[in-house]
Amino acid sequence: MGEFDLIERYFKRPARRAALGVGDDCALLRVGSGQQLAVSSDMLVQGRHFFADVDPVTLGHKALAVNLSDLAACGAAPLAFTLALALPRVDEAWLAAFSRGLFALADAHGCELVGGDTTRGPLTICITVFGEVPAPGGVSQALLRSGTRVGDDIYVSGTLGDARLALLALRGELRLPDGLLAQTRLRLECPMPRVALGLALRGIASAAIDVSDGLLGDLGHVLRASQLGAAVDTDSVRQLLACDPLTINPPLPAQTLMACVLAGGDDYELAFTAPASARGAVAAAAHASATPVTRIGQIQAQPGLRLVDGNGNQVANGFPSFDHFAQDT
Amino acid sequence: MGEFDLIERYFKRPARRAALGVGDDCALLRVGSGQQLAVSSDMLVQGRHFFADVDPVTLGHKALAVNLSDLAACGAAPLAFTLALALPRVDEAWLAAFSRGLFALADAHGCELVGGDTTRGPLTICITVFGEVPAPGGVSQALLRSGTRVGDDIYVSGTLGDARLALLALRGELRLPDGLLAQTRLRLECPMPRVALGLALRGIASAAIDVSDGLLGDLGHVLRASQLGAAVDTDSVRQLLACDPLTINPPLPAQTLMACVLAGGDDYELAFTAPASARGAVAAAAHASATPVTRIGQIQAQPGLRLVDGNGNQVANGFPSFDHFAQDT
Repeated sequence: MGEFDLIERYFKRPARRAALGVGDDCALLRVGSGQQLAVSSDMLVQGRHFFADVDPVTLGHKALAVNLSDLAACGAAPLAFTLALALPRVDEAWLAAFSRGLFALADAHGCELVGGDTTRGPLTICITVFGEVPAPGGVSQALLRSGTRVGDDIYVSGTLGDARLALLALRGELRLPDGLLAQTRLRLECPMPRVALGLALRGIASAAIDVSDGLLGDLGHVLRASQLGAAVDTDSVRQLLACDPLTINPPLPAQTLMACVLAGGDDYELAFTAPASARGAVAAAAHASATPVTRIGQIQAQPGLRLVDGNGNQVANGFPSFDHFAQDT
Repeated sequence: MGEFDLIERYFKRPARRAALGVGDDCALLRVGSGQQLAVSSDMLVQGRHFFADVDPVTLGHKALAVNLSDLAACGAAPLAFTLALALPRVDEAWLAAFSRGLFALADAHGCELVGGDTTRGPLTICITVFGEVPAPGGVSQALLRSGTRVGDDIYVSGTLGDARLALLALRGELRLPDGLLAQTRLRLECPMPRVALGLALRGIASAAIDVSDGLLGDLGHVLRASQLGAAVDTDSVRQLLACDPLTINPPLPAQTLMACVLAGGDDYELAFTAPASARGAVAAAAHASATPVTRIGQIQAQPGLRLVDGNGNQVANGFPSFDHFAQDT
């Protein structure tokens, strides 16, 4: 099968919202009046971001999910995406499964595939996603990394650390019971982007980021963008682990679990800040989007990120942040 | 050097036209009122689209050029782009040279880098480019592959076949004199996208495509999109070779030269159609954009693409089109 047949069979669908979809030199998008276009691009490489034997259905899902997560962190409504795909060979069963996972998530978010590229090469997936953010009178309602203020609360959506636990187990670095491995693996391979929460937080959150490289590292980006610091409560953070550590046998060291939560990466939750006066509004946004959120700390004037215990005493922070040039899958 | 330092040092520049550039979860673009956004994405893979030892300055240029060429084929004005880059290692000299070539072309077209991704992996470059096309009253002025009519003239900009000659020489399949190799290699490695011509052809051309996979194959896309056929004059086409075949010693078979012109690929010229009544307007657009164009044939009702000689007699067409799953660099 050639490049054009492959696109025709697995990736070409009639344009719905786009003015022109797959099949010309460019796609054409209409951007609503008074809207800004939010754009994000992520590249997933085999052996780096996923294992060679990963289920192609979940890979198709995840490739788009990590991009939708960036839209969520900006409070942007998904609109469309392009897909560039390097494939070592044409494997029709793989392509059918990959496109099924991809389109299931795309359809759930009304996000339409409008173009892209296919070529032969080491398995690599690059998606660029487009969303809309209202900018009435030219004033953008996008959630940025900058914008947080001293005294703002710090929140995280959902749970953290499961993806890292699954990764460590798949690498053979620890053992998880079968049920727990299946549960955490789903988080690693099939993350659910927090699009609804991002939209609900427009006008409420002062800053936001998606937790892709680990909570501490990603929160660090927010602090640097705002030139501020933070105290993060380890007791609150400990509650963010989705699985019950008591079900892990042999038991894992508390430090390993904490490292998964604070520096695990691949969580695709939202970390965000909001003034203390907005606690009711944050709770309402969480409720409206059916997304649990946990308050984990406070923005401070003193630069740097400090971990504190329940009594406000600082504890050691030896957790690394994820860097795609420092670590492997 | 980590991922974030790398982006900071080589790819982050202050946003000019974009509302928000590199450094947040998403970039934010303003799309002008009454404009549609044209989007295209291309992925270049080492060993497939370029040799491992290619000059990184020209590689940075070409990675963006092939995308700008898609905008040109739509008559879109360049606006911005994202860059996703998988690198086997952090090589600062390589990155400095790559970004120099990239930004030189970007600046020449006022096209701004607004975001992207970097990761470790086999050298792969994925650029998604954004342009604007006026759509007054919702009616797009974009040049599409569809839209051509029976009787329309067929044109090609510039010259064809040089890139393929260089590729064959670099692969050792033929020998070129040093001067000619340098000249044709420049076309292969440093193509100049026909952005100005694309803009000048708005409202004049009935259909357009960029010649990336070979003239016959790309013209075939236009014909299929319009469900029409064409007669292409081999005498006119023969004039499209930039180099003088008499300077090639030992001489190349005429069939090899013709194959380079008709099916070579990597030319990044524009092929377009326009009504015979627009010949003056096409000449004026070519003049205004300082781009030579050659009339090479005519659209016909009978489907299929026929090669004819100067007397209108059909000649054999045994030239393949380029397919990224069928051929190697």
